[in-house]
Amino acid sequence: MAPFTSYMQEALREARAAADRDETPVGAVIVDPARDEIIAAEGNRTREMNDPTAHAEVLAIRSACAKLGSERLPGLDLYVTLEPCPMCATTISFARIRRLYFGAYDPKGGGVEHGPTIFNQPTCHHAPETIGGVSETDAAVLLKVFFGSRR
Amino acid sequence: MAPFTSYMQEALREARAAADRDETPVGAVIVDPARDEIIAAEGNRTREMNDPTAHAEVLAIRSACAKLGSERLPGLDLYVTLEPCPMCATTISFARIRRLYFGAYDPKGGGVEHGPTIFNQPTCHHAPETIGGVSETDAAVLLKVFFGSRR
Repeated sequence: MAPFTSYMQEALREARAAADRDETPVGAVIVDPARDEIIAAEGNRTREMNDPTAHAEVLAIRSACAKLGSERLPGLDLYVTLEPCPMCATTISFARIRRLYFGAYDPKGGGVEHGPTIFNQPTCHHAPETIGGVSETDAAVLLKVFFGSRR
Repeated sequence: MAPFTSYMQEALREARAAADRDETPVGAVIVDPARDEIIAAEGNRTREMNDPTAHAEVLAIRSACAKLGSERLPGLDLYVTLEPCPMCATTISFARIRRLYFGAYDPKGGGVEHGPTIFNQPTCHHAPETIGGVSETDAAVLLKVFFGSRR
């Protein structure tokens, strides 16, 4: 398995754990590619934490920043099962993430390939390399099953 | 003094306290207009907390959500000394803030009137009423002095 596929599998594991907590099933991991090491792994916790910012990406970035004692994470990569929203995309830019891998595309709420396309804005000071559609089907099925079961 | 001006004075107080901590001088307060009451007041703490999401607006929203035990704050207003960035604007939308009052306009980093103009996106599900330029000069002078003293 290519390394980026196995890291996305870890993110998918976090997404499934989020679904088990009755949270929107999105998971994220932060990886140090130079050391082939996961620095942080988180899933959504907006309901549990009563915090609209507790998306998987934000929690993973905050956790990695706390571990490394820095508000920036240059050289690190982020894997997330769903296209980041504009809040998360801006956070990814602020944190100077090197490369963003995401799973399913999100036409309704995404902020990378859809909506405000944050990284294309002239006011965006750092854009990560971005690779979308990684393990896209797995991520999309997880969301579909979750929202399907709530109707 | 009109109520909205006095709430902005509180936000400016938080901004000055942030400058004293060597943080970018931006302050925010969350107000319950029905009860004429401040629910949360915060200033930037990105350096202190090693957290790129620790903008005044995000901290104030997290604090108010924690106090009220809800991830949404409908009916509440946010006062912030600077035009919110795209991360904060999206957070404000997620939190269902009723009305946003901001001080100085931010052509370089703002996400409300500039850059991705988050609330105008078709993918934005809640846009607060927005009033910009409140006590604009006070907020702008504070930022100018802070950044001027660092050159």
